[in-house]
Amino acid sequence: MTDLSAIEKQLDRLAIEVPSWAYGNSGTRFKVFATEGTPRTVEEKISDAAQVNKTTGLAPAVALHIPWDKVDDYAALRRFAADAGVEIGTVNSNTFQADTYKFGSLTHHDPAVRRAAVEHHLECVEIMTATGSKDLKIWLADGTNYPGQQDMRQRQDALAESLAEIYAGLADDQRMVLEYKFFEPAFYHTDVPDWGTSYAQVAALGDKAKVCLDTGHHAPGTNIEFIVMQLLRLGKLGSFDFNSRFYADDDLIVGAADPFQLFRIMTEVVRGGGLDEGSDLSLMLDQCHNVEEKIPGQIRSVLNVQEMTARALLVDQEALAAARTANDVLGANEVFMDAFYTDVRPTLAAWRESRGLPADPMAAYAASGYQQKINAERQGGQQASWGA
Amino acid sequence: MTDLSAIEKQLDRLAIEVPSWAYGNSGTRFKVFATEGTPRTVEEKISDAAQVNKTTGLAPAVALHIPWDKVDDYAALRRFAADAGVEIGTVNSNTFQADTYKFGSLTHHDPAVRRAAVEHHLECVEIMTATGSKDLKIWLADGTNYPGQQDMRQRQDALAESLAEIYAGLADDQRMVLEYKFFEPAFYHTDVPDWGTSYAQVAALGDKAKVCLDTGHHAPGTNIEFIVMQLLRLGKLGSFDFNSRFYADDDLIVGAADPFQLFRIMTEVVRGGGLDEGSDLSLMLDQCHNVEEKIPGQIRSVLNVQEMTARALLVDQEALAAARTANDVLGANEVFMDAFYTDVRPTLAAWRESRGLPADPMAAYAASGYQQKINAERQGGQQASWGA
Amino acid sequence: MTDLSAIEKQLDRLAIEVPSWAYGNSGTRFKVFATEGTPRTVEEKISDAAQVNKTTGLAPAVALHIPWDKVDDYAALRRFAADAGVEIGTVNSNTFQADTYKFGSLTHHDPAVRRAAVEHHLECVEIMTATGSKDLKIWLADGTNYPGQQDMRQRQDALAESLAEIYAGLADDQRMVLEYKFFEPAFYHTDVPDWGTSYAQVAALGDKAKVCLDTGHHAPGTNIEFIVMQLLRLGKLGSFDFNSRFYADDDLIVGAADPFQLFRIMTEVVRGGGLDEGSDLSLMLDQCHNVEEKIPGQIRSVLNVQEMTARALLVDQEALAAARTANDVLGANEVFMDAFYTDVRPTLAAWRESRGLPADPMAAYAASGYQQKINAERQGGQQASWGA
Amino acid sequence: MTDLSAIEKQLDRLAIEVPSWAYGNSGTRFKVFATEGTPRTVEEKISDAAQVNKTTGLAPAVALHIPWDKVDDYAALRRFAADAGVEIGTVNSNTFQADTYKFGSLTHHDPAVRRAAVEHHLECVEIMTATGSKDLKIWLADGTNYPGQQDMRQRQDALAESLAEIYAGLADDQRMVLEYKFFEPAFYHTDVPDWGTSYAQVAALGDKAKVCLDTGHHAPGTNIEFIVMQLLRLGKLGSFDFNSRFYADDDLIVGAADPFQLFRIMTEVVRGGGLDEGSDLSLMLDQCHNVEEKIPGQIRSVLNVQEMTARALLVDQEALAAARTANDVLGANEVFMDAFYTDVRPTLAAWRESRGLPADPMAAYAASGYQQKINAERQGGQQASWGA
Repeated sequence: MTDLSAIEKQLDRLAIEVPSWAYGNSGTRFKVFATEGTPRTVEEKISDAAQVNKTTGLAPAVALHIPWDKVDDYAALRRFAADAGVEIGTVNSNTFQADTYKFGSLTHHDPAVRRAAVEHHLECVEIMTATGSKDLKIWLADGTNYPGQQDMRQRQDALAESLAEIYAGLADDQRMVLEYKFFEPAFYHTDVPDWGTSYAQVAALGDKAKVCLDTGHHAPGTNIEFIVMQLLRLGKLGSFDFNSRFYADDDLIVGAADPFQLFRIMTEVVRGGGLDEGSDLSLMLDQCHNVEEKIPGQIRSVLNVQEMTARALLVDQEALAAARTANDVLGANEVFMDAFYTDVRPTLAAWRESRGLPADPMAAYAASGYQQKINAERQGGQQASWGA
Repeated sequence: MTDLSAIEKQLDRLAIEVPSWAYGNSGTRFKVFATEGTPRTVEEKISDAAQVNKTTGLAPAVALHIPWDKVDDYAALRRFAADAGVEIGTVNSNTFQADTYKFGSLTHHDPAVRRAAVEHHLECVEIMTATGSKDLKIWLADGTNYPGQQDMRQRQDALAESLAEIYAGLADDQRMVLEYKFFEPAFYHTDVPDWGTSYAQVAALGDKAKVCLDTGHHAPGTNIEFIVMQLLRLGKLGSFDFNSRFYADDDLIVGAADPFQLFRIMTEVVRGGGLDEGSDLSLMLDQCHNVEEKIPGQIRSVLNVQEMTARALLVDQEALAAARTANDVLGANEVFMDAFYTDVRPTLAAWRESRGLPADPMAAYAASGYQQKINAERQGGQQASWGA
Repeated sequence: MTDLSAIEKQLDRLAIEVPSWAYGNSGTRFKVFATEGTPRTVEEKISDAAQVNKTTGLAPAVALHIPWDKVDDYAALRRFAADAGVEIGTVNSNTFQADTYKFGSLTHHDPAVRRAAVEHHLECVEIMTATGSKDLKIWLADGTNYPGQQDMRQRQDALAESLAEIYAGLADDQRMVLEYKFFEPAFYHTDVPDWGTSYAQVAALGDKAKVCLDTGHHAPGTNIEFIVMQLLRLGKLGSFDFNSRFYADDDLIVGAADPFQLFRIMTEVVRGGGLDEGSDLSLMLDQCHNVEEKIPGQIRSVLNVQEMTARALLVDQEALAAARTANDVLGANEVFMDAFYTDVRPTLAAWRESRGLPADPMAAYAASGYQQKINAERQGGQQASWGA
Repeated sequence: MTDLSAIEKQLDRLAIEVPSWAYGNSGTRFKVFATEGTPRTVEEKISDAAQVNKTTGLAPAVALHIPWDKVDDYAALRRFAADAGVEIGTVNSNTFQADTYKFGSLTHHDPAVRRAAVEHHLECVEIMTATGSKDLKIWLADGTNYPGQQDMRQRQDALAESLAEIYAGLADDQRMVLEYKFFEPAFYHTDVPDWGTSYAQVAALGDKAKVCLDTGHHAPGTNIEFIVMQLLRLGKLGSFDFNSRFYADDDLIVGAADPFQLFRIMTEVVRGGGLDEGSDLSLMLDQCHNVEEKIPGQIRSVLNVQEMTARALLVDQEALAAARTANDVLGANEVFMDAFYTDVRPTLAAWRESRGLPADPMAAYAASGYQQKINAERQGGQQASWGA
């Protein structure tokens, strides 16, 4: 069995935030399939999320989505989460489902629309304060479908102004992360389409503004680990939205489509200090379990991240450095691949057991009876779904 | 003004089927925006579609989508359409919105699911007979999201069997067209992902089975006009689903994203005899007007096809042949581009007027008062939307 | 250690042809870097290739490229190879380096050019007969750079005629494989751009014509294992050209860019009977070692194929079938991934030792002194390079 | 005929630098075809370039490539150019053809290699001073082919240091532009792969460092006009390398693959002030005429840029603004497309004639006898080729 002693500290530090919306139904524009046991309230979502942490020890925080997860009493919600063994994580704003924002939100040419969007974000900041959340995540659906439809330059300037207003509302220990996305739901231009735009925008704001990198939000063929490296180098990588994809923003389970890519990404996270003590890099899931079971889908996801992190930590850095210095292409690649091909699963099972966790979290969840319980209990009410 | 006399016959032959679902609301997985005047019944959809034909003379048929457009009396529907000046066109089956088909339809490993899907298609054939429709269009959402999820080979064999059963149900003057799509809603494998698969499947069936080419259903960079050429050469191009895209299956207005590509496609249609007398090639729109007005969006679309067809017909074939024989790269390209850069709009306006149609269909529709009328009348009821 | 007894027969059957041109220098349009010890003759290439087989037992045949590997006495060349412990494999034609073919070869509008190209292929068939080679591989650079440049339809028809002439020249035990490629060196249209075209062309010829699938010759995002499945299902997969890529036709070491993809491909090869007794599927490498050492690059390549084949053979088919029948998405994927994540390297080292091969072929080659020997001996003469 | 009076000043200001290497032979890794009349010296390249300016009035400067265009006496070269009616434009460095740089240049881990690369750039600066050139263009082939091969972070830091040294060597009126490229010749990671990296690097240097945007250097589907907008907004767009592509960095004639994209790009150039008086934005060609004639290929290229610039200038900004304010999607798009579909060719012919230029530059060049003259004269010597 692989010896983990040298990497145990970093492994212990690994924490992956899970999104409240992963437990509700999701789908494509063609169909959202309903499933048994789907939560109907924020509390039920948090309960589901807590199962992920209970079986893996890897998911201590739950991200909220506003307005989907609005409640009257956020202090009570925070206590509910604490009782379930988790914290409230990142607060996600949402300007893509109100009719107001059909043609843009923070970028809209109409000051009244921008005003509403800014206010929504300031409300999110209040919720952060009330729940103890530290991060405001902004992902914008803003963009256009047809060439000429709007003035891209004007919108970029409007975005800068809007973000500055929101930034001014952050407390000292709060951050804003700005997510970029190649395309969808806009099909001609997207206002924050790439890391360069997100970087330029947050660099203009200050230290509390960072970039959020969603692993599914890039053009085909993009070397994502390069961007990870660059943003860590520039001190501007705030967080990850993990998922995987074969085509567009497929939102599949992280590591499912290209496990080697996840390994390379985690290698750069390690290289750039993202798992060092004191790092403020936040790791999150952002996925859609359209056809698979949701809670097991989340468990599988955090395990995939853990497995690839362990492999990334196992790279023989000394041998690698020597091969690189010698320009030994095949030698360096072999050292790198050796870590990737190492089967860390038995070792991680032992790591779990040594911490009082089940050796096999998927099996433990299946055996726990939780799914049967919620299937039976959650009758009536309105099922949560992506966008509801 | 360009002289159209040499191409008038082919221009007059141009007919583009419009889809009933284009007049309802559509959107992305993030949001479907509701609009005023949206139809609530099949009849209202047909009335809207008739406006496109009335202003352009280009859209004499309306495609149906079953079960979205199910009615009790198809003979009455046929008469309703005729009274509105249009015919019933292609009947589109739908196996992507029932829970039964979550894991596949014509390709499913369970014979009972395949049975239901085959029966659905045979019902569509009955509707074709009742409405006078000649084409059954099959687009399958079938596929999987995760490697290993199902046996792709078994599904391909199942598909062949299912299609053979449906094919056997066609009357002598009815056809089946099998559409392919690169991805979505399945994100790992799609059972009919490319023209090769569609071709291999329909070639195994017989002369009444053809391929449907949706211009938005290809991998990035695919040379679509090459596929048009190849399928016409093989005698297997049954129909087009026109739309345009910058990224994935964006379903934008045809010609909006890359007008030069539409020109090249129409050039190969002309080259392959697709506009010759007796050609059974069917041209259809399949688009989603997520943010733009729907009826004007359809008018713009058929005009775009007409404009690019006129340009394609205007290519100086003699000069082109001479340059090609001489391997004169720049010369051949210049002849080709000369047709593309010719502004045919004034000439087509004159063509319209000579046929009793408005010179400017967009303006004529705006001035007609139709939109105001339906905005006022269509209150209450259930708005049609993509998937409803 | 993983128990290989159940899969040993199939593993023993694994054979990967290596290309003679992999041992010469290769590069990009920007630069071809010269390296020490580069072969200057066909014989030296074969000697180098023999090292791959000697250390791995996986590479019993060497593919030739004509005219690069033309010799006066092919019978002598065959004996030379046999003495080195390898056979002559596929003969590759070349119509991309003579000025004659600047605007096309088998597809050219000029019958004289087509004639020359056909004759070249018939010469290749003679070389096959003389060397004992069974396969003629045709990859065409034919295509155009500018829209309108040539008539794609005419060229496709010309291709069909040319291929029929070549096909007629094959002996009963000889085959022709037609390779397709998405693009390069032509940048607008390529005459055989996709598997559908290659399939349609070879299907028109007869049983001795098959498709060659080069793993680097697809559009971004293409599901290659689906094509493998389909062509095996249609009885038309003749051979593989293995390599890997991140972007275009990068020609990197197979398995280097996306090892999981190679695993999925080998899974479909196994599923489709490609490793069954009597299968005539041929596995070949086609790579460019631009910056890495060549012989070790080839050794690494065949090992990668072997490792992924072993993993593919280890998939628990019974468990997989059960999960698939139950539509258990995560369960089926877990069975699949379990095989991929299994570290087969120690087991394969043991397999090698049990057959009198070195446990570590890379180390064995490095220790053999062969490289030092050829570096010293191969002075003067004209280094072989890709295209020389 | 379109009235150009409102846009004449901007049209007159349009100037496109042509590259000296466009007149030599170029090709792919598969083949470089030789052509008649190919220049053998820098002077012959400049003479050829002067023909482009002579027939179009659009190409007053010629870019050099060092070391390809090294001469003993740069003052003499400058005079030679002046006599031919052109200036010396951008000086392009080259670190991709010396063996030293096989594993990197400005990014190499070895300080000695970096030293050599920095010195090369400082030599380029000297040549700039001697020739009157104002811009140093840096495009780096630096990158790796295999994951793990080198430390991307270390290389990025090394790049920053190297660039700072070069920057320090610039005179007050000299600039450095840093070009980015998605991939090629490196196939795993490229050290300056995207505009974000180029921007972050030049932003760290100062006002004299800018980004160079090559239109062929992006991932599939990238919205290039967005990047143009963003870089102009950030004050960091230094220059364009114009060309076009269907797939990768195909280096086709600008506007040939997607004329509408070129229109959109020029629209953002106009929007961002790139053609305003005093703008320091530089427009250049960077293409490879692999199969077409070289001088006519360059003439066609500058004409394409001029035609699309004219169309971009013709957009009815008032109507566009009104439609945008009203969120009239189809209306805004129609205004935009109206400019694109306007056939400006006759008007531009008149513009040329009014300035003493030939109405049809392609025909004028063909009739000039220049090509026949150089075909006859340029015998013997070493033909210039891309990379020679």
